Amino acid sequence: MSPIRQAASENGALATASGTRPVITLLTDFGLEDHFVGVMKGVILSIYPEVAVVDITHGISSHDIVEAALVLKATYSFFPQGTIHVVIVDPGVGSCRRPLLVRGNKYFFLAPDNGVLSQVYACEEPLEIYHVMAEEYFLKPVSNTFHGRDIFSPVAAWLSRGLEPSVFGKQINDPVKVDLPLVRKIAANRLTGRILRADKFGNLITNVSAQDVSALGQAPLALVIKIGDRQITRLCQSYTEGNPGELFVIWGSSGWLEISASQASAERLLQATKGQEFDVELG
Amino acid sequence: MSPIRQAASENGALATASGTRPVITLLTDFGLEDHFVGVMKGVILSIYPEVAVVDITHGISSHDIVEAALVLKATYSFFPQGTIHVVIVDPGVGSCRRPLLVRGNKYFFLAPDNGVLSQVYACEEPLEIYHVMAEEYFLKPVSNTFHGRDIFSPVAAWLSRGLEPSVFGKQINDPVKVDLPLVRKIAANRLTGRILRADKFGNLITNVSAQDVSALGQAPLALVIKIGDRQITRLCQSYTEGNPGELFVIWGSSGWLEISASQASAERLLQATKGQEFDVELG
Amino acid sequence: MSPIRQAASENGALATASGTRPVITLLTDFGLEDHFVGVMKGVILSIYPEVAVVDITHGISSHDIVEAALVLKATYSFFPQGTIHVVIVDPGVGSCRRPLLVRGNKYFFLAPDNGVLSQVYACEEPLEIYHVMAEEYFLKPVSNTFHGRDIFSPVAAWLSRGLEPSVFGKQINDPVKVDLPLVRKIAANRLTGRILRADKFGNLITNVSAQDVSALGQAPLALVIKIGDRQITRLCQSYTEGNPGELFVIWGSSGWLEISASQASAERLLQATKGQEFDVELG
Repeated sequence: MSPIRQAASENGALATASGTRPVITLLTDFGLEDHFVGVMKGVILSIYPEVAVVDITHGISSHDIVEAALVLKATYSFFPQGTIHVVIVDPGVGSCRRPLLVRGNKYFFLAPDNGVLSQVYACEEPLEIYHVMAEEYFLKPVSNTFHGRDIFSPVAAWLSRGLEPSVFGKQINDPVKVDLPLVRKIAANRLTGRILRADKFGNLITNVSAQDVSALGQAPLALVIKIGDRQITRLCQSYTEGNPGELFVIWGSSGWLEISASQASAERLLQATKGQEFDVELG
Repeated sequence: MSPIRQAASENGALATASGTRPVITLLTDFGLEDHFVGVMKGVILSIYPEVAVVDITHGISSHDIVEAALVLKATYSFFPQGTIHVVIVDPGVGSCRRPLLVRGNKYFFLAPDNGVLSQVYACEEPLEIYHVMAEEYFLKPVSNTFHGRDIFSPVAAWLSRGLEPSVFGKQINDPVKVDLPLVRKIAANRLTGRILRADKFGNLITNVSAQDVSALGQAPLALVIKIGDRQITRLCQSYTEGNPGELFVIWGSSGWLEISASQASAERLLQATKGQEFDVELG
Repeated sequence: MSPIRQAASENGALATASGTRPVITLLTDFGLEDHFVGVMKGVILSIYPEVAVVDITHGISSHDIVEAALVLKATYSFFPQGTIHVVIVDPGVGSCRRPLLVRGNKYFFLAPDNGVLSQVYACEEPLEIYHVMAEEYFLKPVSNTFHGRDIFSPVAAWLSRGLEPSVFGKQINDPVKVDLPLVRKIAANRLTGRILRADKFGNLITNVSAQDVSALGQAPLALVIKIGDRQITRLCQSYTEGNPGELFVIWGSSGWLEISASQASAERLLQATKGQEFDVELG
């Protein structure tokens, strides 16, 4: 078996040879209408023009730390080992909240200390967390309103050039954590979940995981979803199974239960909103 | 004449020296609000960090195979020879529709077998079409809802590393094709065309080509466009010719007739909608 | 001190070693829904696949030359020395307006001669301005509607390969300039400013600079902003200082005064519109 094939069969997502181009990702609530994201890339390339800068998304709802934490969880492990993930959802910019650099098992993370990395703390082991304080790596003068440009971008770029995390600050062990919206078990065979967001196709991404559902009882009992005055009983394996306009549920690509509609937008059909609750019953 | 000048004069779009960085493009209906596009890039860079990944657009209307086929036609030949074009408009994801790899004259294409490559089949010669089946190159477990991430991205990345198309599957010769909205000739000097989409400036891109118009009779006879209760008689060479707010037609940069308005949005002025028909008369 | 640390302390934004990857930026009013930006990147990579192409933003309001000039001013100096900034806001495309290539102190600029580079002429010294006429570097046939693809992209790519600006055309010294919306001093201690745009968070970016305010009198006198029937007296150092929903002003990251609201959108609270005037009084 050739080396290339070996890498493919081991794990498509981890074939990166050492010595190859480093990757920095950006995940923010900045949108793309303004110049914020472009300027961050300019600062990074000024320090290390060889790095690949990749947008995860800039469509996080303004200031929504929980949404960013969930999108980060769904995406970060698909990048090459050693990738530096920069996560800027930062309502506290300019206050005394700390800028953090986290070294996980395979990835680095840079973010304000507001809980946006909570899922990283929960999943990555071992874990080192640094309070970034080494001003000599910052862009001067540091503004009070755009640390993405003045602190996180230059630190990410210097880190991608191979500097050790410890040069940027001291280790801490009390990062801020936020609670993600967990499902509530309300009966032996019933739980209440929540809509996290709608995707571009109108699929409603929820906070219900496969473990949550299996905790209700043994599959293959029927699943009944009650949302508003509607009841959904069909569980599909792919988006193509339902009849046109039919509502169904499906396990989405990030591992969460989705409420979908065949060739239609479940968001529009249900007039559903972010944060809306619904019940899942097994029986 | 220096080598560089030579390359420039031959063809600006084909100066790529062999041995240079490969290019993968993405053309999808995923939008940029979600993380779908970012994750595809992560998977690609995990397998080949040196590749350049370029967005053609992610603004295709959800599930609109014809729109994607037309945008692909208008764009793919502007990329370096050897570019791998990944086209994901995939309402049938998770069903038994085949993933395809196409080797054209100068480019590769990866797409679901739903007709989105119809224009490629019509224009490229010679042509090899493969049914992608080599699971050892897929990201495991393969989901039923996101083959862009699990199949098309890793196959594109391995292909960009130089693997032969034949390692990914068997050749086929019965790909699905879709009919593009053709103009209908309704009289010796008259045809009915259709609005394909409005661009960001409100220019209405139509499906009327120069050949369609020349088939009506010899230029330089006057062109009359009838749309709704409006009649447009002016043909401009550039967007700057009309009087402010005046409607006119113009040959757009992709070779199709456009209905435009000087310093204004023709889409708004005409309250025009996608798919709307109009007549073109020569006389 | 190690060489890396030295570069960091000198100037984070200018650590680029010679011989590294060149950068081309794109700043346009094309949006991202269409394929315009993708095609420009294809043309650039066809000529020079090693170059890094970075989007500053494509969200400039259609045909708004002044907005683009201001965004360019706020961003261009954050990129590596030698970066080629391509600015396409081009209502006059296809008319006789000239395509320009500008060599500033540290950067190159490519843009139509419509004033979009006015801030560059004001800030960069020394300055060479070329009228781009060397058709052998253009993509043929040159359309009348998309010079971003046919002229500016190929010229940027050839320039990034190291060609001298003088090969593309003759020097000129009469470029078109536009007046930016200046503040009007209406009394010894009062001026009238204008809202330039709202950012994604609803912060209102204005045309009032620190020099404008210091010309009114000596700080730390109180600042009073009168906009519509509202009066704003609070000047904050960061977005986190105000009480929820409170309006305040703040010096934004690009050096202009911003009208903001704590954890809310000042744009929505004030029903403010682009171009709206307001008064600033010191006293």
